[in-house]
This record gives sequence, C-alpha cells and structure tokens, in this order.
Amino acid sequence: MSVSIDPAVAASLRGFEVPEKLGFGSVMAPVMFRATCQDGVWSGGELVPYAPLSLDPAAKVLHYAQSCFEGMKAYRTAGGVSLFRPERNAHRMAYSAERLCMPAVPEPLFMDGVKTVSAYCANLIPANSGESLYLRPFLIGTQPDLSVSASTSYEFYVIASPSEAYHAGNMRVWVERDDARAAVGGTGDAKVGGNYAASLQSIARLKKRGFDQSLWLNPGNRHTVDELSGMNFFAVMDGELHTPALNGSILEGVTRESLLMLAREQGYTVHERDIDIDDLMALVRSGTCSEAFACGTAAIISPISVLGDGNGLYELSAAPGPVAERLRSALLDIQEGRSEDAFGWMVPVDMVNLD
Amino acid sequence: MSVSIDPAVAASLRGFEVPEKLGFGSVMAPVMFRATCQDGVWSGGELVPYAPLSLDPAAKVLHYAQSCFEGMKAYRTAGGVSLFRPERNAHRMAYSAERLCMPAVPEPLFMDGVKTVSAYCANLIPANSGESLYLRPFLIGTQPDLSVSASTSYEFYVIASPSEAYHAGNMRVWVERDDARAAVGGTGDAKVGGNYAASLQSIARLKKRGFDQSLWLNPGNRHTVDELSGMNFFAVMDGELHTPALNGSILEGVTRESLLMLAREQGYTVHERDIDIDDLMALVRSGTCSEAFACGTAAIISPISVLGDGNGLYELSAAPGPVAERLRSALLDIQEGRSEDAFGWMVPVDMVNLD
Ligand SMILES: Cc1ncc(COP(=O)(O)O)c(C=O)c1O
Ligand SMILES: Cc1ncc(COP(=O)(O)O)c(C=O)c1O
Repeated sequence: MSVSIDPAVAASLRGFEVPEKLGFGSVMAPVMFRATCQDGVWSGGELVPYAPLSLDPAAKVLHYAQSCFEGMKAYRTAGGVSLFRPERNAHRMAYSAERLCMPAVPEPLFMDGVKTVSAYCANLIPANSGESLYLRPFLIGTQPDLSVSASTSYEFYVIASPSEAYHAGNMRVWVERDDARAAVGGTGDAKVGGNYAASLQSIARLKKRGFDQSLWLNPGNRHTVDELSGMNFFAVMDGELHTPALNGSILEGVTRESLLMLAREQGYTVHERDIDIDDLMALVRSGTCSEAFACGTAAIISPISVLGDGNGLYELSAAPGPVAERLRSALLDIQEGRSEDAFGWMVPVDMVNLD
Repeated sequence: MSVSIDPAVAASLRGFEVPEKLGFGSVMAPVMFRATCQDGVWSGGELVPYAPLSLDPAAKVLHYAQSCFEGMKAYRTAGGVSLFRPERNAHRMAYSAERLCMPAVPEPLFMDGVKTVSAYCANLIPANSGESLYLRPFLIGTQPDLSVSASTSYEFYVIASPSEAYHAGNMRVWVERDDARAAVGGTGDAKVGGNYAASLQSIARLKKRGFDQSLWLNPGNRHTVDELSGMNFFAVMDGELHTPALNGSILEGVTRESLLMLAREQGYTVHERDIDIDDLMALVRSGTCSEAFACGTAAIISPISVLGDGNGLYELSAAPGPVAERLRSALLDIQEGRSEDAFGWMVPVDMVNLD
C-alpha cells in the first residue's frame, strides 16, 4: 500500500506506547476503521483515530441490541503480518447481521477494514508466541427511533487490541443446567450481543463457586452439550475427537472448523454429534474421556481440568492433555508462520510505510 | 418543585416546538435525565439537554448488549401531569438489570428521573385522548473492555417522546412457529435489548405477508402462547378473559396486571393459564373465542382482527370487541383523570415554573 496517511491518524499512532501488561481486550489500539450505511447504501471506509462514538440516546443499538460482531487475530510472522481465514469471519458476520435484519457489511469493505487496521497497527503487534492483535469488527444500528423495528442507519467499525492469549491455563468448567444463552429458533448461531448479555448471570454465579466458564446445554433438549460462552467444546474419548454437531444454537467457530480439518489430517477420527451431558460425565468418571478442551480465536485451545455441576466434580485425567497440546501447537505453528500453510489459511497484509 | 433551571436546559426547552405529526417514539423531547454508576456507587441525577451520548467504541453495551429499559407514560390531566404506576416500572427495571448483572437503579433515583423529565416537559404533552409523553428510562454498561463480563461502569438515562397511541387499529397477528424471542432460562421475563433484536426477523417476515405483529409461542413447549413482541395477549371466550400465565419467558406487563385487576372489579371471570395455540385457533374458528387483544403501555389495548399461520387465517368475529373497548375506556379514563382512581395507580408530578 502506498497511501498518504491522515495526519490525525499518524499522530495517534506516534503517540501510542504498547503497555507492558496487555491482558485480553483491554488495551485498545489508537486507530479504528469506520464506515456507515444509510438505507442500504454503504459509504467508503476510512481509518480514523480511536475516539468515542457519538450516538443518539434513542439509537436502536442501545435499546434493542441491534448489534453483531466478530473476533479474529492478526499475527506477526517473519514475513510481516497475516490474518487467519478472515473470509470466514466476513461470512459469519454477514450471517449474524441478517439474523438481526441488519445489512451485511460487503466482503471487500470488511476485508479493507481488518487489513487496514492490521497494517497501520503492525508495530503494535506483540511478538511473543500466543500474542497477537485481536481485531473486533462490529456493526450497530444507529437510527434514533423507539419503535421495535430494524434501523435504517448503521455504523461499522473495526477496533483492535494488542493482546495476550486468553485463558491459557487449565479451566474449571461448570455445567449450566438452569440458564440458557439463546433459544432454539433464537440467535445462538449468530454472533450477536444478546447471547452474551444472557450468559453474564451464569458466569457471575459460577465464578463465586470457583469455576471459570459455563458449559451451555442445548436449550431445546436441555441434555446435550452446546458450547461455552465464547468457545466451542471438544472431548477426547479413546483417542478420538468428539464435538457437538452444529444445531442452530451453537456458534460455528472458525477455530472449531480449522481444528476438525487439522485433526483429520493428522489421522484422528473425529465425530460431530450430539453429546449427552450425563453420558459425558459418566465417561469422564470412568476415564474413557481423558481429555476435554475449549477452542476459539481468543484462547486458541484451553484445556479443561474439571467439569462440575450440582451432581459433583469430575476431573479430567489428562489436563493439559496430549491431543489438545498437539493440536494447539499445530494450529499456532501455522498461524505464526513456523509451519507450512497447507490449507492456505493465512492471508498476508500489505504493509504501509508509516514514516 | 422550586429549583433554579440550568440555562442550557431552559434554552433547549424554549427552542423546541412540538411537531404536528407525532407518531410513536420518533419525536424526542429536548431534555433528558442522566446519572452514572461506577463500581456500584451511583452519582446524583441531573437534567441535561437532549444530546448525543459519547461512548467508547469498546463499551460493553455495543458488543454484549448489556442494556435494559422501561416504557411508561406521563398523562396530561385536568389537575396537571400524572404517571401511571411508576413504581412497577422501577421494580421491573431492577429485575431486568439483575438478570444482566447490572446494578439496579435505586428507586428514588428512578422516580426522580421520570418525574423530573415529566415536569419539565409538561408543556410538550399532547392533550388529545390517547396521546401522552412516552418515557423511556434505560441503563447501559459503558466500560470499555472486550472480555465477556459485566461492566464496572453504567449510565442511566430517561428520555421522552411526545407520542400518539401506538397501533390503535385492528391488528393482523401471525403465529410465529419457527423463531423464538427468548429461551427458557433466558431473558424473556426481563426487558432487555436482546429479546427485541431476536424478534426483528419475525416481524420483517410477517410484514411482507401483510401482518402487523408476531404472536410468540413458549420456547420450551413451542405450543402455548406467550405474548407479542411488545405487548401481552388476551382472549375472550364465552365472555371470560384468558391470558397466558407468567412462566419465566413472558414479560410481566404493567398493563396486563392492571387489566386483570380492572376486569375482576368489573365482574369478569379471568383465567391466567397456559393457552395451547391449536386449541385457541379451534376456538376462534368455532366462534367460542370471539375476541382477542394485545395490551401494553404504548398501545394500551389493541384489538386483534385476524390470527394467521401456515395452517390458515382465522378472523375474530368481534374486532374491535366489546370487552376490549370497555376495558380500554375504563383504563384510559383512570389514566387521563376522567374517573376515580380507585386503585391509587396515578402518581401526580409536581410542576416546575419554567418562566
Ligand atoms: C459463543 C461462541 N462460541 C464459539 C466461539 C469460537 O469461535 P471462533 O473459533 O470463530 O473464535 C466464539 C467466539 O469466539 C463464541 O463467541
Ligand atoms: C415483550 C413485552 N411484553 C409485554 C409488554 C407490555 O408491558 P407493559 O404493559 O408494562 O407496557 C411489553 C412492553 O411494553 C413488552 O416489551
């Protein structure tokens, strides 16, 4: 890219220092990408300094949660900066938008957004393995109007956060038998705000009991495993991989799909199926299920050490387990450019000269 | 009240003219009430000019829909301005907030907000019967942080809209058999943004088919009636009133509860029970169910003229029906001060001298 850099953007970038302690999603990059849509017509996108949004108090997003988002990462590699399967996120965001009657962000605009932010923030991407620039594209309905109907105006942003890996440790997971994050016929397979709002109460409750994450059951049958609040679920039984089949209430994770491909390539037998929670607990107890883990963009793979619910606590004998470790390394090696990208997953970002 | 008026507020009020055409929730009053909460500690509230909010792009409300709201009305009466059962809205908003791990707005602060806005906007309240000042208290999580957890900071607002009655006409209602607005164990009985986002797709679909509103079924059994997207449901069978019993996925409407009290007082037999949708359709077909209506703050009572779904269209023989008409008049007469307030529902607002 050879563009003239907006002086305000250049000043924001110059004035920014990456703090020592990053955490996940709390340090925000000093620039963001922005585009708007009015009555179905999209503006061009622009890179602007990171700054507060100005929203009418009656904006639809604030009352009726008309918002959807994505989570993805830009990795620093020897060759520069690369994105991991960004077109998957563009497609999922289009799907999420449609579920809430929002206009899809055109794929070229989405790509322009995530690439531009990554290129300008290249120097902010931490270099340690597992660290990256977390990108958060999001779309909100902004029309000021209190009737329950879709907004006529929208704003699309890509913000970014230099981040450590999320939840690297072994997780204690609580089986949520009461609350639900999304209904059958609801929004569970879309990445929309309401699903996360609905999950906060469960998370707060289990944290008090010393757990880290909720394991959500299917809201229709209340008996099969769906996923975690921000990650998909995998179990290892007799050396084979099992993960819940997509059923309309599970978010289709890009990491989940990539791990399924990697695992098959590495010779694992993989099963996408309904996993009954009581069967699972029994198999953990008997040792047949030796290993379980969660996966998602933020955490890549997080081993699960304990599964608990009102009926008891069951320890996974292998945590972190060998399958999780092996798959995590294989995926991270591709993402960070240490092994060959046999699936063609990595999309390099053209660099800009910031001097 | 005898307060000194902030010059900016006074200027906003002076510069405002109530437009001829009001609609519902699209004309916003020129002032709003505002308070903030940081780590559980509330600020005092203040009346400020209506103006855009400044929100960090990473604010929790924009990503995780941490928002809840209320809908209530200030009525112009001979004696001045009155609110209808505002404490019910204060309690419901506290319940909604808790479901999403938000701090409840203290009841005195909530009351201060709705009363102050009503008092300062007294001159903007349209005077025709059925018109009023619609009040929209809302609470949003504002902490800039991308982890899925409750915000540490919140903003509470009361905005207002001089409005006509919503949906005064006869409604064509579509039985939604596919989508769900909220899960069992979800947020259906809380007034939170995600429920409304989830309902937009159904509304858009049925509008194309010439209908006005969705009738939501219980997300657990998919067979009993819950409510409409912003109103509760009533049917009249053999002269008796039937409405779905509260079950965790229905919002407990203030209008619903008030109508139940009024109807009992007027000698109607009322049933709060599970209403199977197929039974209901059969009773409409046979004429046993002669009348059905929806109720809520915005619309008060809206008669239903047609119930339709994939299996056919059923006309309600009486629309607008005599029971709906009688209850609507009885309630509106109390709200607009024409009949005695036997239940003690109306709360007068102390006026301010704006000169
Ligand atoms: C509910 C939910 N499930 C699963 C995932 C994992 O998806 P991905 O691998 O695309 O990050 C996420 C998002 O990160 C999520 O929010
Ligand atoms: C989903 C839903 N049901 C019912 C109602 C009716 O409640 P109320 O009578 O308190 O306005 C509302 C709100 O107005 C609503 O949003």
